[in-house]
Amino acid sequence: MSTTGKTITCKAAVCWEAKKPFVIEDVEVEAPKAGEVRVKILASGVCHTDAYTHGGLDPEGIFPVIFGHEGGGIVESVGEGVTSVKVGDHVIPLYIPECGKCKFCTSGKTNLCSVIRISQGKGLMPDGTSRFKCKGQTIYHFMGTSTFSEYTVLPEISVAVIRQDAPLEKVCLLGCGITTGYGAVLNTAKVEEGSTVAVFGLGAVGLAAILGCVEAKAKRIIGIDINEDKFEKAKEFGCTEFINPTKLEKPVQQYLVDVTDGGVDFSFECIGNVDVMRAALECCHKGWGVSTIIGVAPAGKEISTRPFQLVTGRVWKGSAFGGCKGKSQLPGIVDKYMNKSLKVDEFITHQFELKDINEAFHALHEGKTIRSIINFKHQ
Amino acid sequence: MSTTGKTITCKAAVCWEAKKPFVIEDVEVEAPKAGEVRVKILASGVCHTDAYTHGGLDPEGIFPVIFGHEGGGIVESVGEGVTSVKVGDHVIPLYIPECGKCKFCTSGKTNLCSVIRISQGKGLMPDGTSRFKCKGQTIYHFMGTSTFSEYTVLPEISVAVIRQDAPLEKVCLLGCGITTGYGAVLNTAKVEEGSTVAVFGLGAVGLAAILGCVEAKAKRIIGIDINEDKFEKAKEFGCTEFINPTKLEKPVQQYLVDVTDGGVDFSFECIGNVDVMRAALECCHKGWGVSTIIGVAPAGKEISTRPFQLVTGRVWKGSAFGGCKGKSQLPGIVDKYMNKSLKVDEFITHQFELKDINEAFHALHEGKTIRSIINFKHQ
Repeated sequence: MSTTGKTITCKAAVCWEAKKPFVIEDVEVEAPKAGEVRVKILASGVCHTDAYTHGGLDPEGIFPVIFGHEGGGIVESVGEGVTSVKVGDHVIPLYIPECGKCKFCTSGKTNLCSVIRISQGKGLMPDGTSRFKCKGQTIYHFMGTSTFSEYTVLPEISVAVIRQDAPLEKVCLLGCGITTGYGAVLNTAKVEEGSTVAVFGLGAVGLAAILGCVEAKAKRIIGIDINEDKFEKAKEFGCTEFINPTKLEKPVQQYLVDVTDGGVDFSFECIGNVDVMRAALECCHKGWGVSTIIGVAPAGKEISTRPFQLVTGRVWKGSAFGGCKGKSQLPGIVDKYMNKSLKVDEFITHQFELKDINEAFHALHEGKTIRSIINFKHQ
Repeated sequence: MSTTGKTITCKAAVCWEAKKPFVIEDVEVEAPKAGEVRVKILASGVCHTDAYTHGGLDPEGIFPVIFGHEGGGIVESVGEGVTSVKVGDHVIPLYIPECGKCKFCTSGKTNLCSVIRISQGKGLMPDGTSRFKCKGQTIYHFMGTSTFSEYTVLPEISVAVIRQDAPLEKVCLLGCGITTGYGAVLNTAKVEEGSTVAVFGLGAVGLAAILGCVEAKAKRIIGIDINEDKFEKAKEFGCTEFINPTKLEKPVQQYLVDVTDGGVDFSFECIGNVDVMRAALECCHKGWGVSTIIGVAPAGKEISTRPFQLVTGRVWKGSAFGGCKGKSQLPGIVDKYMNKSLKVDEFITHQFELKDINEAFHALHEGKTIRSIINFKHQ
């Protein structure tokens, strides 16, 4: 049943103001306009970026808003001229779109399609308007996805169509966290067989980076975290050794250089802490070590190092969404999961219904979760 | 005539103390020990790194010392077991050696051979002693080369043998400045055909980087310097446009992003100023821009930027001696010069005899030189 052209009313978690609890509201979701699709969301992961903006830490955060950017759903209707997606398709929303036509998409060098960056940054669809209303007020989109709603509207370039037999309540996690860590290793840093790797931060992104390192056949995968509770899971994922920097008598970068005969070949910062970013660079081997920043630092924070670190052959780079082009590459990553060559289920530690979303954020802030999934009941 | 085994006395420019004028002294130069060669120097360029250490700015500078690291000469004698070099060979001393056996040399990823790094940093030969004496005092080596002496001793791994028909008083400049800029473009950054490039600093290294960009067929080569007197030479070398940052109303990186439709594909910092290093990174195009630091910053200075610059696809790297492996690659660069496909003569603006070396440094500090050559008379 297509409902094209009609506004529908559904439940969504609205955040009326930074730091205030989410309120489950009846939200009007307009029909998709030209080039857009409306998606029935079945599940959505809860990511630190949602919590970061919810906490008022992003100076560009816009309210009232519907958060959520790690979702899975089914296309309910499509707007005029949509050709790459059809009603009934199973999709993962993409906070980095893939238009396939802009200079970024055609460069062969990056996944950072930027055609809708400006409107997306303003919490709006490409035509400069929102599709969400509640109590007569405009509600803004978040990261172009807004998956904490039973229905959401996205540009067609912002959804990846995936196979129908993949469980959306699992593979939704490929919409952000897992792909971000896993892809940074394989697409951005291109870890080589036999390498020694340091992974700073053993949350969902760090664990996903470990999966990438295992696939790349790294020899030593050194996990670094100040919370030793995370070591067991990281070991199951393939981490070969562990460091708690708070228990060292020297800076972690110096320790790593000492125990790796000169430094690691690759390092990944999966936290968003600028001091750790520096350590991750400086623990790299002279001549060839590559450090990749994955974590998102607080607004205004800067990274620093002595330029000598770079002049002597270390490379500093970064990665967003694992360097992954969503429309073209996500279906293949879903296949890897379905072929049992990529862990996804193991990331899920908590499950919530939409009505309990505030509990999910509470669990995230307590640091006990790897990933919580919000499941939508759609009564 | 081989003088193996005998100490010889010759003229050299000794710097007894930081900031003090050079003194032309009779220096005793010991015979080369096992694995070493003694070289009769015919010419040496005067580089900013000599002036930097001479000026007391390098906290690791050691005195008394014989400076000079951009030389050309003829092997006068060889020590026991030397196989890669013979008496009469024309050579360019290498401040970065190439042993061919260490993990750096065999990595295929770097030119930073490190087997003699520690002794070289202490101003000594690999056996921990100096080959220079004057007035009964030990005189230290500089950068493992000390080319401001009529004779110098080097490890055999620290000389590149070049063709005999190449004029040493010209190609000595390939021992540092020219190779550093030219190689950074071709070996480190690997500039691609059709690229837009920004070169910050139009001294010898910047000019050499321009030559690399021309060879790589860059489309736009934008030269940036606060001294507009340098623009004419840079234009002759292949620079296509110029910017004087002091005449802009916005930061140079913002200006460059605006006039290049999003930023440059490659940038090079050829000065050693950490603020310029930041500008060079931030003028790069999102998604793929690569910024390479070539300049040597003052001790203790740090580079900074927002990590967002890297997360959105810019890459920050550095280069030493243009990523060039001296023994294997310098002969080919000399060939390019001899085949007239690489400019060298055009860098030479001043010539001095060894006795006038203080004038050469004065000219360098005045900023009027590109490169001065010290010519040795050997009476």
